[in-house]
Amino acid sequence: MIHAMATAAREAARALSRATTAHKDAVLLRIGAGLEARRADILAANAKDVSAAEAAGLAPALVDRLRLDDGRLDEIVAGVRSIAQLADPAHAVVSKRKLSNGLSVSRVRLPLGVIAIVYEARPGVTVDAAALCIKSGNAVILRGGKEAFGTNQVLAEVLAQALQQEGLPEAAAALVPTTDRSATLELIQAEGLVDLAIPRGGEGLIRFVSENARVPVIRHYKGVCHVYVDVAADLDKAVAIVLNAKTQKPSACNAAETLLVDGMIAPLFLPRVGEALRAAGVRLHAEQGAREYVGEASESPDFDREYLALEMNVAVVDGVEGAIEHVARHGSLHTEAIVSEDTQACARWVREVDASVVLTNASTRFNDGGQLGLGAEMGISTTKLHAYGPMGLEELCALKWVVRGNGQTRA
Amino acid sequence: MIHAMATAAREAARALSRATTAHKDAVLLRIGAGLEARRADILAANAKDVSAAEAAGLAPALVDRLRLDDGRLDEIVAGVRSIAQLADPAHAVVSKRKLSNGLSVSRVRLPLGVIAIVYEARPGVTVDAAALCIKSGNAVILRGGKEAFGTNQVLAEVLAQALQQEGLPEAAAALVPTTDRSATLELIQAEGLVDLAIPRGGEGLIRFVSENARVPVIRHYKGVCHVYVDVAADLDKAVAIVLNAKTQKPSACNAAETLLVDGMIAPLFLPRVGEALRAAGVRLHAEQGAREYVGEASESPDFDREYLALEMNVAVVDGVEGAIEHVARHGSLHTEAIVSEDTQACARWVREVDASVVLTNASTRFNDGGQLGLGAEMGISTTKLHAYGPMGLEELCALKWVVRGNGQTRA
Repeated sequence: MIHAMATAAREAARALSRATTAHKDAVLLRIGAGLEARRADILAANAKDVSAAEAAGLAPALVDRLRLDDGRLDEIVAGVRSIAQLADPAHAVVSKRKLSNGLSVSRVRLPLGVIAIVYEARPGVTVDAAALCIKSGNAVILRGGKEAFGTNQVLAEVLAQALQQEGLPEAAAALVPTTDRSATLELIQAEGLVDLAIPRGGEGLIRFVSENARVPVIRHYKGVCHVYVDVAADLDKAVAIVLNAKTQKPSACNAAETLLVDGMIAPLFLPRVGEALRAAGVRLHAEQGAREYVGEASESPDFDREYLALEMNVAVVDGVEGAIEHVARHGSLHTEAIVSEDTQACARWVREVDASVVLTNASTRFNDGGQLGLGAEMGISTTKLHAYGPMGLEELCALKWVVRGNGQTRA
Repeated sequence: MIHAMATAAREAARALSRATTAHKDAVLLRIGAGLEARRADILAANAKDVSAAEAAGLAPALVDRLRLDDGRLDEIVAGVRSIAQLADPAHAVVSKRKLSNGLSVSRVRLPLGVIAIVYEARPGVTVDAAALCIKSGNAVILRGGKEAFGTNQVLAEVLAQALQQEGLPEAAAALVPTTDRSATLELIQAEGLVDLAIPRGGEGLIRFVSENARVPVIRHYKGVCHVYVDVAADLDKAVAIVLNAKTQKPSACNAAETLLVDGMIAPLFLPRVGEALRAAGVRLHAEQGAREYVGEASESPDFDREYLALEMNVAVVDGVEGAIEHVARHGSLHTEAIVSEDTQACARWVREVDASVVLTNASTRFNDGGQLGLGAEMGISTTKLHAYGPMGLEELCALKWVVRGNGQTRA
């Protein structure tokens, strides 16, 4: 089944690569209209999925990711329409120069081809991924999570109808009609048919794909993100950034999980930020050296855990050097922020911390395709190759070389 | 053993990422001097490797790749010195803009970290890869082929001494001290320690790495490259380009293996180019439809084979459409050239052919880092992600996002 799907997707990818921008945008607008037309069906299917997930005891953060309502569906529709407004990356010329032998050398974006995305509970990913892939001239094979299967089926019908109405193959954006692991396995081993697999989710999924894939993989893995408050921090900014990074959307991968504080400033800053965090409902997991300053922290820290909830580790470190070491040990290559007015400390942070997005004096929540100007994203890549951080339309293309001559041969 | 090597390489990568350009260049100059100082040892070790390979019946193209002499060693030394002259990609700012909320967003190159290269007979790769990785701030683990093991050991001593003299860890560029497959396996599964594996070689090696790797892989696989001669070709240019693509260096991956000729021009062009190719010593493998025009072609074509020798397939196709279809079936994502004065045909070729380098009216032999202005290359990537085509210094870096604020939080 997967082989047939991927073969059809391969053909569809060639059709999409040839399609004009206007044609691809027309598909997106039809998807938007289709989602609105099928609103009741989508929400009904989603309500069933949510009930089943709650009955099965799915974690609250995951149920939250699964749930759709009118507002979220409006956001999904708006997202598709905004992607129709973005520039088409396919076949765009990125650079061009002339060599002394007269050859003209350009670098041109070409769609990657067939992209397989393997994700979990969020049904919005089904539509976002399809819209981004179609716009960039790629075919996509959608392997959503079992929790969202009913919702995804209705969404896939909308995608298929929009493609069909525009005379493009339905295989350009198709849902894998099962959530068996064996189908996923076949998908990520489809060498020569699938150009890229994107696993987006938790440890089990990422491990399964990493260990079994034979096609190139870009992981969208967890965010164990840190905010480091330096001795030279502006403490008002620091409190605001820590609170925002932790509490503005705790279920997001770019929410902070650990607060690192320079030992020099800990006695002054920790009581203050501790109070603010507790007032916002955050449970603190403070390590030994921080516990005396934040009061009755009841639990031990787990520095490798993505809480996705109103919980936060707290640790005291020895300056920017100590913070960089802590992040090198426990960071997940996702998002790392320093708060400091010291330009030297900020410069070291920016240069030495390995993460897809490093920030100075700003909240970790800005690691987001929309916030950083991509318009939309497939997710946040934690693989350093090709796309590191928010993966937008341009990152769904490769760069090929185009060399134009008038008979040149090599001497 | 590999775990210890990779752990040491990880530490060395952090030191190299922090090193100044001048410091890294000093290492390269010491490598160049060291190669000259150890010239006799290197050539003696290589002569032994070559004798053993010949005795073992290694294919002539591979023995040719293995062999060093004074001239080739001079080229290797010149290569290292030229890399010292290139711009340092590490920490270079690629783009920068200001968002309306006051955040400054940059994209900055950072070294990938630890790169494992798994290659075959060419000892020059040992030095090229080390020089490129050091210059770009990466550590490299070199897993060369068993044929070149003696040569590589002497080269590795030169690398180690140069690093040591400059106070940098020897683990920054170290040779795996065995050619066991089990060591390679451990290397390509070292998640969290190795950031990228580059297999560079033939089908067996590429398959082994693809099927077993758990770290990201960029393949440098074979080139089954085509020259398509269109009905609107300038036939003088076409003959020159076909001859150059096939015969200028037949053992190179960017040499052409198959000539495709538009049926409209075949009766006119094939006898002429056939004569020229045979005069240059090329054995033709013509398919049915081409055989009558090229004379006594004795063998059948093998359209998926990289001959690496003075042999060439010949096929007649139905215009640019037919040529694009042939390449979609048999191409290896490497290098594809059209010869045509018809701008429409050229435009279709450039847009629809999937290959790392597509050329119009120029020889396939130009798919080369030096020829395309990169200065030097790790090889030619046939993986579409991250680096497609010649992989130079910039492609040994990731792009991270740097976001600078003054207290911004997300609303």
